Amino acid sequence: MNIEVCASPDLSGLFDLEGKVAVVVDILRATSCMTAGIAEGVSAIRPVSDLEVCRGLMSEDYVGAAERNGAKVDGFDIGNSPFSYMDPEMKGAKVAVTTTNGTVAIERSKSAERIIIGSFLNLSSVASYVRKLGLDVVIVCAGWKGRPNLEDTLFAGALAEKLAGNYESSCDSLLMAKVLWEKAKLDLSALVYKSAHVARLKRLNIGKDIELCMEIDRYGVVPEVNAEGEIVKAIF
Amino acid sequence: MNIEVCASPDLSGLFDLEGKVAVVVDILRATSCMTAGIAEGVSAIRPVSDLEVCRGLMSEDYVGAAERNGAKVDGFDIGNSPFSYMDPEMKGAKVAVTTTNGTVAIERSKSAERIIIGSFLNLSSVASYVRKLGLDVVIVCAGWKGRPNLEDTLFAGALAEKLAGNYESSCDSLLMAKVLWEKAKLDLSALVYKSAHVARLKRLNIGKDIELCMEIDRYGVVPEVNAEGEIVKAIF
Repeated sequence: MNIEVCASPDLSGLFDLEGKVAVVVDILRATSCMTAGIAEGVSAIRPVSDLEVCRGLMSEDYVGAAERNGAKVDGFDIGNSPFSYMDPEMKGAKVAVTTTNGTVAIERSKSAERIIIGSFLNLSSVASYVRKLGLDVVIVCAGWKGRPNLEDTLFAGALAEKLAGNYESSCDSLLMAKVLWEKAKLDLSALVYKSAHVARLKRLNIGKDIELCMEIDRYGVVPEVNAEGEIVKAIF
Repeated sequence: MNIEVCASPDLSGLFDLEGKVAVVVDILRATSCMTAGIAEGVSAIRPVSDLEVCRGLMSEDYVGAAERNGAKVDGFDIGNSPFSYMDPEMKGAKVAVTTTNGTVAIERSKSAERIIIGSFLNLSSVASYVRKLGLDVVIVCAGWKGRPNLEDTLFAGALAEKLAGNYESSCDSLLMAKVLWEKAKLDLSALVYKSAHVARLKRLNIGKDIELCMEIDRYGVVPEVNAEGEIVKAIF
């Protein structure tokens, strides 16, 4: 089986996703939120690109989650903090979510056979599920407004390490991700704290979020986009 | 001063090049060819995106250089080997060149204040010239058909190391390039030989080209795009 890395949603047109698994990753923080939410009992998450569509869904019993440029958007129930998704009151809830990068990456992965949600929080479970599906894999990094970023690339390297032996690749983005992960894995936060996105988030004072998003294998679930376009817990 | 890395020409729309220096890099092999050619006495190189435009220039006294997918295109004088540019018969010649990735990257950098040609062959000279210009820098990597590649990214890391102290950055692509270069620099070929592009070129049997393109500071020239759109030796 083959594995590739799409370093930015803006490059997704270069990848043929048909018949493949897209593993969408937006470590800080959309896919970490989705993982935490589904693990803690959120029943379904509907990713949408548009703020107004998201707002509309709030009148249909969805909790509205909206983030732009790292901050919660006024008028929505929650922003893009994993802790909001972990609130006991969210058990059983449905969430409609739009974010700067993560929901765009999911949208651009629509032609894939399967779309699953990856984060450090569920790294090993994603690897197990992907191995079980037995399809070619494209790791779709959300990046930041079209630019590749460090933390999503590191996740790609980490997942590639977990899949070694089962998957091969001639993709330079994957090769680079593996070298970076090899360098970073012993002290993930040390390198990630140098990233551009952490600098942006620091201004928003959410160090606790970042720390949580760096936790490896906190959860054993894999969120997956179902036929209705909602993210639910994959059964495997 | 600020420094950024555009990991692929397909992402160039995300970068504001106005008033900045674009350092275009296509290590394997377009910008290595240009560096070697200008250093060895080629008087001017006209980069064009289109094969037919390139062919037309051959009737105007240009040597025609054309490469697609790594191979020389039939009917042109030379392909994309630096050794062709180093031929003593090329002294004083003008070359019209079109390649799969490198000439595209130059084309996409047109809005920059200055466009200079970087390669490992002239790494230190590029750094000196950039420092002298004193403008913000965007390193534009040619990649492979829109995808980021290893060797161009490594060059970005190497140039960033040379410019350390004078330039700062909050660009994750640059941060990743620096970490990769730090890892690769003691044995550049070892890592580059794992890259997708080397695998492609190996099939074309041009190991000597690759070896040459990995040589650091073989030449002391900086090719630069002039007002007429031709690449000539920068005087500094």
